[in-house]
Amino acid sequence: MWLLFLNWGEWGKIELMSALTVPAARRTLINAPILDATLGKTPTRTPVWFMRQAGRSLPEYKKVREGISMLDSCFMPELLAEITLQPVRRHDVDAAILFSDIVVPLRAAGVGVEIVAGRGPVLEAPVRSREDVANLPILEGGIPEVEQGIGIILEELSDSQALIGFAGAPFTLASYLVEGGPSKNHEKTKAMMHGDPETWHALMARLVPTIVNSLKSQIDAGIDAMQLFDSWAGFLTERDYTEFVLPYSTAILNEIAQYQLPRIHFGVGTGEILGAMSKAGSEVMGVDWRVPLDKAAQRIAAVSGPKVLQGNLDPALLFAGRAPLTKEIERIKAEAQTAIDAGHATGHIFNLGHGVLPNTVAEDITEAVAIIHS
Amino acid sequence: MWLLFLNWGEWGKIELMSALTVPAARRTLINAPILDATLGKTPTRTPVWFMRQAGRSLPEYKKVREGISMLDSCFMPELLAEITLQPVRRHDVDAAILFSDIVVPLRAAGVGVEIVAGRGPVLEAPVRSREDVANLPILEGGIPEVEQGIGIILEELSDSQALIGFAGAPFTLASYLVEGGPSKNHEKTKAMMHGDPETWHALMARLVPTIVNSLKSQIDAGIDAMQLFDSWAGFLTERDYTEFVLPYSTAILNEIAQYQLPRIHFGVGTGEILGAMSKAGSEVMGVDWRVPLDKAAQRIAAVSGPKVLQGNLDPALLFAGRAPLTKEIERIKAEAQTAIDAGHATGHIFNLGHGVLPNTVAEDITEAVAIIHS
Repeated sequence: MWLLFLNWGEWGKIELMSALTVPAARRTLINAPILDATLGKTPTRTPVWFMRQAGRSLPEYKKVREGISMLDSCFMPELLAEITLQPVRRHDVDAAILFSDIVVPLRAAGVGVEIVAGRGPVLEAPVRSREDVANLPILEGGIPEVEQGIGIILEELSDSQALIGFAGAPFTLASYLVEGGPSKNHEKTKAMMHGDPETWHALMARLVPTIVNSLKSQIDAGIDAMQLFDSWAGFLTERDYTEFVLPYSTAILNEIAQYQLPRIHFGVGTGEILGAMSKAGSEVMGVDWRVPLDKAAQRIAAVSGPKVLQGNLDPALLFAGRAPLTKEIERIKAEAQTAIDAGHATGHIFNLGHGVLPNTVAEDITEAVAIIHS
Repeated sequence: MWLLFLNWGEWGKIELMSALTVPAARRTLINAPILDATLGKTPTRTPVWFMRQAGRSLPEYKKVREGISMLDSCFMPELLAEITLQPVRRHDVDAAILFSDIVVPLRAAGVGVEIVAGRGPVLEAPVRSREDVANLPILEGGIPEVEQGIGIILEELSDSQALIGFAGAPFTLASYLVEGGPSKNHEKTKAMMHGDPETWHALMARLVPTIVNSLKSQIDAGIDAMQLFDSWAGFLTERDYTEFVLPYSTAILNEIAQYQLPRIHFGVGTGEILGAMSKAGSEVMGVDWRVPLDKAAQRIAAVSGPKVLQGNLDPALLFAGRAPLTKEIERIKAEAQTAIDAGHATGHIFNLGHGVLPNTVAEDITEAVAIIHS
């Protein structure tokens, strides 16, 4: 592993050694549209998955979650596998997204955190001082329950359906830790960044190994791709993002590079920082619905060269009916093609520009997937 | 008035007739920094006011509001005047912003709406069908309580302190009406736009006279400038904004043009639509903190020529301490100057890039104003 890391950037050697670094559990996917899109090949059909496809939009999800708390369900292998697979069975999407939560690695490390229904993750004690940071537990090994769940999922997926693992990016995790819970304005987080930058940088650095180990654990268990979710990054200026966040997201994606699986990076409302985020090193950049994909591709390519695009249907369009939905899907596919034709992107994975909204009707999601595939 | 409207665009005639259109009540401001900035003159000091400067950040506000509901307080002339004046007395800002709420004109027209603490405006019945739209009351005259309040405010303001009136833009009002209350994702609103555009356009058209009459009422009572708040516009793509919103915001600002008072236009998270919003016709464009002012000015000037900029300190910086606050204020002033020097902007009114956050310490606001003025 170390040897490979030293050789990173020397493409020939990496190609040669890649067989060594693929974990024993990693499957070989065949004609998997999502993998083909990330590799610059022409996929058999437009690949599509939806963020939050597993969850509250599905009646079968509500049924199996009954009486079980959100965080508990993320540590129950059979249940998390079932929930991950439900939308794949129902919608014919090209990938499963691991059912989990960005605070799962924190909980696994021993941080006191609960997900409160209707509110989100709430911390037992916020992290505000250097001492708090020094006492923040680090996830040393993997998360066995998640690994077992991944094993169950992979048994059911076909060899053209990818399993995407994920982790929350350090800024988003840090915001929950500093605020003590979800925040509309992230003022305590930003106050720490600007008013106490040493503590801020210490906190971000301390989160890196927990996130890396969570991802390594998923990779060892066999995920085919991964997404780094920086849910709140869009609340930052490009200047703040670059100074206070980018180095740590870069460190994480760098550590994962050795496993040679597609890395996706996404945040909401990130139009102003797409270029900066693209520097972190992912192969795929998720794009919020606010920015047309051809424009997004220009911003990304100008900074990091062409990448694969992911997105970007406004999730609210799933409430608008078939005709407007079809029109929007066609527009997005055309914008992606424009970006590819212009050399600003190398591929396109269809997705929403944000997660599936809780009240979305399951049948409307299935219909959208069919339109995207047609 | 009608004659003037017919002559709109013929600048000479408008200049000639402008004396006729200034309401009897309008004051003549002397060396008012905000007015000078909007007229392209060099103000005596950097003009500054803060969105939501009147409100929960002030202990004296909490005291006078005790036991009185938000919406009731907007219809009590003495009280709304007192609340409007509190931050002017305390912070030495260059403008008072009328204490009101964007749903006040709806309530005055007879719409069943309450502001629920911790939640926001909640409608008695949402507006979803053509029939609902046809039954939506229109504000025909003015709002006497607000006019009386403005009279009281003007007695206390000096002739260099401007009073800024305001109205919610039709998209933001429509979102509350369609959703039935505050919404994180505006899915019912967007579903109507795309799925039932006729009803959508009918609703937007029906809101225009209510908003115009509310503003005319404030102008007749003597406000010195006005801001059109499109709080939620940043949730739209440029395409949707241009098709479904811009015509109506333009109609409102056009109607107000005859009064020749500075028109400010602002929304949060509007980086992608600054150019489109600038077409609506305001002299001043408010800018969210996410976009540096020099970049914002380029986007605006490319579409509508140079305008006055307003903004754009991140309100979270008021929690960071004096040194980082000073640094950020200097950066913003420098970026505004860069825009002016490059010919992309004609002036700068300092403000936040969003409203004052509820937990902000009043003394920290006063300090920020002093730094901005120094």
